Amino acid sequence: MNELEKHLTEIVGDAHVLVDADLRAQYETDWTRRFTGEARCVVRPADTAQVAAVVRACAEAGAPIVVQGGNTGLVGGGVPGGGEVLLSLSRLTAIEDVDPLEAQVTAGAGVTLEKLQQHARPHGLDVGVDLAARSAATVGGLVATNAGGIRVVRYGSMREQLTGVEAVLADGTVVSRLSGLTKDNTGYDLTQLLAGSEGTLAVITRVRLRLVPLLPARTVALVAVDGVEGALALLTAARAGLPGLSAAELFLPAGLELVRAYGRLPDPFDAPHPAYLVLESAGRADATDEVLEVLGECEAVLDATVASDVTGVARLWAYRETHTEAISAAGVPVKLDVSVPLRELPALVAALPDTVAAVAPAARPIVFGHLGEGNLHVNVLDAGDAAEQVTDAVLRLVASLRGSISSEHGVGRAKAEWLGLSRSAAEIDVMRRVKAALDPAGLLNPGVLLR
Amino acid sequence: MNELEKHLTEIVGDAHVLVDADLRAQYETDWTRRFTGEARCVVRPADTAQVAAVVRACAEAGAPIVVQGGNTGLVGGGVPGGGEVLLSLSRLTAIEDVDPLEAQVTAGAGVTLEKLQQHARPHGLDVGVDLAARSAATVGGLVATNAGGIRVVRYGSMREQLTGVEAVLADGTVVSRLSGLTKDNTGYDLTQLLAGSEGTLAVITRVRLRLVPLLPARTVALVAVDGVEGALALLTAARAGLPGLSAAELFLPAGLELVRAYGRLPDPFDAPHPAYLVLESAGRADATDEVLEVLGECEAVLDATVASDVTGVARLWAYRETHTEAISAAGVPVKLDVSVPLRELPALVAALPDTVAAVAPAARPIVFGHLGEGNLHVNVLDAGDAAEQVTDAVLRLVASLRGSISSEHGVGRAKAEWLGLSRSAAEIDVMRRVKAALDPAGLLNPGVLLR
Repeated sequence: MNELEKHLTEIVGDAHVLVDADLRAQYETDWTRRFTGEARCVVRPADTAQVAAVVRACAEAGAPIVVQGGNTGLVGGGVPGGGEVLLSLSRLTAIEDVDPLEAQVTAGAGVTLEKLQQHARPHGLDVGVDLAARSAATVGGLVATNAGGIRVVRYGSMREQLTGVEAVLADGTVVSRLSGLTKDNTGYDLTQLLAGSEGTLAVITRVRLRLVPLLPARTVALVAVDGVEGALALLTAARAGLPGLSAAELFLPAGLELVRAYGRLPDPFDAPHPAYLVLESAGRADATDEVLEVLGECEAVLDATVASDVTGVARLWAYRETHTEAISAAGVPVKLDVSVPLRELPALVAALPDTVAAVAPAARPIVFGHLGEGNLHVNVLDAGDAAEQVTDAVLRLVASLRGSISSEHGVGRAKAEWLGLSRSAAEIDVMRRVKAALDPAGLLNPGVLLR
Repeated sequence: MNELEKHLTEIVGDAHVLVDADLRAQYETDWTRRFTGEARCVVRPADTAQVAAVVRACAEAGAPIVVQGGNTGLVGGGVPGGGEVLLSLSRLTAIEDVDPLEAQVTAGAGVTLEKLQQHARPHGLDVGVDLAARSAATVGGLVATNAGGIRVVRYGSMREQLTGVEAVLADGTVVSRLSGLTKDNTGYDLTQLLAGSEGTLAVITRVRLRLVPLLPARTVALVAVDGVEGALALLTAARAGLPGLSAAELFLPAGLELVRAYGRLPDPFDAPHPAYLVLESAGRADATDEVLEVLGECEAVLDATVASDVTGVARLWAYRETHTEAISAAGVPVKLDVSVPLRELPALVAALPDTVAAVAPAARPIVFGHLGEGNLHVNVLDAGDAAEQVTDAVLRLVASLRGSISSEHGVGRAKAEWLGLSRSAAEIDVMRRVKAALDPAGLLNPGVLLR
C-alpha cells in the first residue's frame, strides 16, 4: 500500500479502502457490462467531511478520481477509465426529516431514489422524478446526471426538483447551499451548473429537493395509435384535456413482441398496430372519464385498454416498463438515448431502421421512450462488431434533425466522441473553460464528457 | 468621435450610436432614479450579428460594456458605473411563430413581456412569468436576472421557463441553443448558467421559452388573516386544496393604508387586520367553490372577499399591485428584496420594524411580497441619509435567518457589497473563477454582481 492509500485509510478507515482486485471488482464494471476499467483503489467515505478529505488527499497526490453513486449509469460515466481512485458515495445515506411547510427534503448523495420515495410518502409527498432503476440509483447520481424518467412530462427532470446542493470542489473545498430557498438571485446558480455535469466539476455530497404532492389516484391507458404522428396528436389532446397527465410513453411493435415473449404477457390488442402509448393521469380523484373522453375524441386512436386499479395499472405499465429487461435478456444492445424536436419525431422513427441496416444489416433496433420530450431510447440488438458504426449513424441522423445525442443518460465515456454533434465548437470551448476554472488539474472524472 | 465610436457606427449605423449627453440621458438613469452613471456612448444594434460585432469591437478596444434591456431593473445592474459602452438590446424585437406542438416560442432579447403575452395568447398559451413591469421589461433582461413575479408559486421563475438561449460571449463569439429540446443532457447547461448571471458572463440576444396553457377562469380572494403564521397556514391549505393556485401574495396594514390613500380605494374590510393575502386560482373553470372551501376551513382567516369576474378580479388585485406605485409616489424608498425559509418568515416580519428603527428612527418600512417563496419586498420610506445603514441592518437580519439578500431582483451594483451575506467565500470564489473563464478581461457589466 503506497502513500496515498495509507492516507485514505487514515481518513475513512481500513474497511473502506479496497485495494484488492476481487474487492474492487463489483465497482469496476457497470450493470450493463459494457463499461469496465481498473481502479487504483475504491474508497468509501462516510460523510461530506470524509469526502472533502479524500478529495484533498487525491488533489495533493495528483491522483485522478472517478465518482460513483448507485452504478446504474448507462454511459460509463461512473466506472474507471483506468487507474483512478474510485470514490463511492454509497455510504452517504443520511436523510433529514421532510420539511412539510416547504415540501422539501435534504438527502445524502448515496440515498437511493426508492428510499427517498419511502421517506416522503408518509407525509403525503413524493419525489418528482421516477425511473426503473429506483432501487439502486442514488440521488447524488440522479442530480449529477440530471436524470429524467417517466414523470418529466409533469414535473421536469432532476434539475427542476433541485433547490440546492452541497458539493466538494476539486481541491477539497466544500460549497454548501441547502437552505432550500426557492428564489435566490444572488449570483451564478452553481447548483444548476453542477446538475448534469456528470461529476466533472465537483463531487455532490448532499442534495436538497422539492417534493410534489403524492397523488393516490392513477388512471392508465394502453393505447394503440395509427403511427408516431398519431401518437403526437394524442399527446397534444392529452396535454389539453388531462390536467393530471403524468406519463406519455411510446413504444413500437418490435418492442411489444420482445416484451410479450420475455414476460409471457398476453397480447393487449386483437391485432398489431403501428405504435403504442402508455398514458397516465394522476390526481386526487379517479380520471377514467377524462381519459376516455380524450381517447374518444382523438382520431389517431385505434384501440385502447384503461385501468385505474392497482393491479390493472401495473399490468398495463408492464408492457412499457419491461422493455429494458427484455432487451438486456436478449443480448448486450447498443444503447442510445436521443431526443429531437417533437415535429421531427416521425421522421426519426421512420429513418431509423434503414439507418441501422445500412451499417449493420442483421441488427434489430428496438425503440421506446418518453414521448413528451421527444426522447427515444434506441436499443440495437445483434449489432455484432458494428456497434461503433451503428452509434455513429444513428447519432448523425439525430443531429441532422436538430436533436440531442443524449437526452437523459448523459455523455459519460460512451458518447464523448460524439459530443460535437449536439454542441457547437464554441459551446464545447465554454465548457472546457468552465471545467478548467473549477478543476484546473483535471482530476475529477477524466475522460467523462470532455475528452 | 474616436476610433471605437466610428467602428460602432459602421456596424449599427449613425442613428444608433448615441454620443451626445442629451441623447444618452434616458438610458443612463434607472426608472427608480436611484442609479445613474455616465456612458461613453449608447449603441443600439438591430440583431445578433450586430451585437456580436459590437462586442468584438469593444473587446478589441478593451472597452467595458454595460448591457441594458427595458431598464426596469431595481438594483442598478443595467445603468453605467461610469464610462462604459451602453449596449441597448431594445431593437432586438423579432418574435418567431409560436410552436403549438412544443408550446414554445423564440423571441429577441428586446421583446417586452407584454408583447410576448399578446403573441402567445391567441394560441391558447401564455408566458409562465408575469410581473407589474410587463409593458417595459424585456425577455432578455427577465432571463438575465431570472425574474420572478406573481406566478412563481405555480410555474417557477424565468429560469424554469427557459429551454434555450442565444448569446454573445465577451470576445464576440455567438453561442446558440434554440432548438427547444426539453431534455438534452449533453454537458454543462450553459443556458441555466446564463440565467440570472446579470449580463456578466455573456450578452443574451434571443431566448426560447416554454409557454403554459392560457387559463381563462380566475378566482381571486382578498383575505384578512390573523398574522404571518396564519398566512402560512392558509398557504399550506391553498396548496393542498387548490390545484390551480396561481398566486399567493402577502401585504400588511401599513401597505394597505398607503395603497388606499394613493389609489383612493375603499377599505375592503370593516376593521384593520394583522395581515392580508391575495390568493388566486386559475383554471379552465371557475374555482369559487374550491376557494371558499379552503377559506372556510382555515382558522387563520378573519375575513375575505372573493371575485371571479374581470372587474372584481382587477379590483381585488389592485390592493396588492398598487403597492410599488404608491410607495414610489411617497418618496424614493430603500428597496430590498429578500427571502427566507418559510418557517423563518414570521420572525423576519416581526423583527423588521425594530431593526429599521434602530438605524433610522423616522423610517417607514412597507412590506409586501410573494408568500409562496418566502419573498418579501422591504421598501423603507423616509430613511433619510441612513439608506446604507438600513440596507445593512435588514440584510444582516435576513442572513441571520438563513435567507437571501436578493430573492428576485438580483445583485446588480446595489447589493454587490452584501453578496457575502448570502454566499460563502468558497461560492464567491467559484463565481469569480467562472467569470474569469468566460470574460477574462472583465469587460461585461463590470461592478455588477462581483466587485
